[in-house]
Amino acid sequence: MTTVNRQITVAARPVGYPKESDFTLVESPIPTPGDGQFLVRVAYLSVDPYMRGRLSDRKSYADPVQLGEVMVGGAVGEVVESKHSDFAKGDILQGHFGWQEYALSNGAGTIRVDPSLAPISASLGILGGPGLTAYFGLLDICGPKEGETVFVSGAAGAVGSLVGQIAKIKGCYVVGSAGTDEKVEHLIDDLGFDDAFNYKDVDKYHRKLREVCPRGIDVYFDNVGGALTDGVILNINPYARISLCGQISQYNLEQTEMGPRMLGVLIGLNAKVEGFIVSRFYARYSEGLEQLAQWMEEGKIQYRENIVEGLENTPAAFIGMLHGQNIGKQLVKVS
Amino acid sequence: MTTVNRQITVAARPVGYPKESDFTLVESPIPTPGDGQFLVRVAYLSVDPYMRGRLSDRKSYADPVQLGEVMVGGAVGEVVESKHSDFAKGDILQGHFGWQEYALSNGAGTIRVDPSLAPISASLGILGGPGLTAYFGLLDICGPKEGETVFVSGAAGAVGSLVGQIAKIKGCYVVGSAGTDEKVEHLIDDLGFDDAFNYKDVDKYHRKLREVCPRGIDVYFDNVGGALTDGVILNINPYARISLCGQISQYNLEQTEMGPRMLGVLIGLNAKVEGFIVSRFYARYSEGLEQLAQWMEEGKIQYRENIVEGLENTPAAFIGMLHGQNIGKQLVKVS
Repeated sequence: MTTVNRQITVAARPVGYPKESDFTLVESPIPTPGDGQFLVRVAYLSVDPYMRGRLSDRKSYADPVQLGEVMVGGAVGEVVESKHSDFAKGDILQGHFGWQEYALSNGAGTIRVDPSLAPISASLGILGGPGLTAYFGLLDICGPKEGETVFVSGAAGAVGSLVGQIAKIKGCYVVGSAGTDEKVEHLIDDLGFDDAFNYKDVDKYHRKLREVCPRGIDVYFDNVGGALTDGVILNINPYARISLCGQISQYNLEQTEMGPRMLGVLIGLNAKVEGFIVSRFYARYSEGLEQLAQWMEEGKIQYRENIVEGLENTPAAFIGMLHGQNIGKQLVKVS
Repeated sequence: MTTVNRQITVAARPVGYPKESDFTLVESPIPTPGDGQFLVRVAYLSVDPYMRGRLSDRKSYADPVQLGEVMVGGAVGEVVESKHSDFAKGDILQGHFGWQEYALSNGAGTIRVDPSLAPISASLGILGGPGLTAYFGLLDICGPKEGETVFVSGAAGAVGSLVGQIAKIKGCYVVGSAGTDEKVEHLIDDLGFDDAFNYKDVDKYHRKLREVCPRGIDVYFDNVGGALTDGVILNINPYARISLCGQISQYNLEQTEMGPRMLGVLIGLNAKVEGFIVSRFYARYSEGLEQLAQWMEEGKIQYRENIVEGLENTPAAFIGMLHGQNIGKQLVKVS
């Protein structure tokens, strides 16, 4: 067994889109757990849009990563050494282990993964944060009803692809946007979306949306923000519900983008816009995970992963994800 | 009794702020009710911010007034002649009678007013649309809890002044903004607001709001929109609720104003923005009116009217209201 732990630290705060040079690969000895700690060998790392926010110095719901520190992020791995009474060698855990091959933990924030249910990588996707985000963000924030039109932006991503499929299970007319023709085909042909379009081919979003959502939009699950969201607001129906999950179009801008003031539209339509972080539903995670696992077992939800190999390729996978290069959940296989 | 009905019609669609020349005073014979109709002599007319929208050709929740037609608006008056079995001479009714001295009606949309409860003009204010708007828009959309901070823009207007007082009844820390020093004094000295400021004296709204709402903003009742609302969003607390009632800063602009994209802020704070039109609470109006009447009787709510005399002065009263010249409910006494 090697004694070297490879880690990726933050070298610089990105300006605009992150670059590989904003990260550094460092080596250090594998740490030894003290009392009440255990050591995890990371199997898979998750790269997600929210991590862009952690690289920024701006005030947010979570503290930024400091320069020189290991980059934060969710991962799944196996306990290889334990001095914690609740965790034993061989346990599979999901947790905030960061971008490194080995992580010490005291168990805080970790979740046990049952490897007999699904491949353990699913705990970073459909049976983890993205799955729960889609489940609660769509069903609890928006309450879609049968026959309503649901529009999802960023529809081919880890969260969006689940949102659309859950909305189909609920009997909705489901339309999505994505950034390549291949993704658009995937949404319609593989995931059962009723319609989809490549936003990069569209000049006037509100016109395109009127065409693909002819009965207007009742529910909007927003991963993207910006001008696309403006276009949606011009197409919402009375009592529309908008779930704000992400604003990926805004994350890599060097200054706040200006856009037309749209809040007035919400008044006459009795419409709601609500932001959310999935942790607000923490007390109900098991409900969500059971339902998602059941749908997966029944074949009602398809789930795709995009796996890159090697810790050293994590920055590139993260940057590629921010540029929309992945279909489905972007992961890095570490060991 | 005169045989002449004076009416104010729309002469031109306003560009920017309405001007008196956008309206025309016309005379016509007082109409005679047919079967199922009655004639109302208008006592008071209401002028409200929402009417600016009716003058515009833009798509909205209600159809625009056509050029040459009598301007729409709520009013209260007395039935002077009736061929309707449900309405008798002497009945006092509130309804959408428009800017005229006499109106025909078939009873649709009218509400009976009990003149023994309060002066009948109150049916256009605290015991009418503005009262119900404040009651449901604050309590149902935002659910303010004891000890929370509630900020109200347009706080000296018909709706805002009631919102602030209802929030005080609920045990909140209440702050308001208005456009003159006299209004600010009225909010603090007469209505019991904890703090208030003249927005015209403020350069950076987010800084001023941080100063007057030191524990952040939990609930925002928005009558104004624009840069003031941007400043609020930079000061909201986790799980903040924003009720969008009006956007008066935007109503008289010749083109859509641009502003910084702020929706991303809502995500990390699990915050909600909801627009509403009071009619969605129609089934519960009696609940709201009873509670408002009780608070008024108990002296817990003060209510101020600003009354101009003479139908011919309605356009000036309306324009003055849009410029913020009124404290409390702006009315026109017609007869």
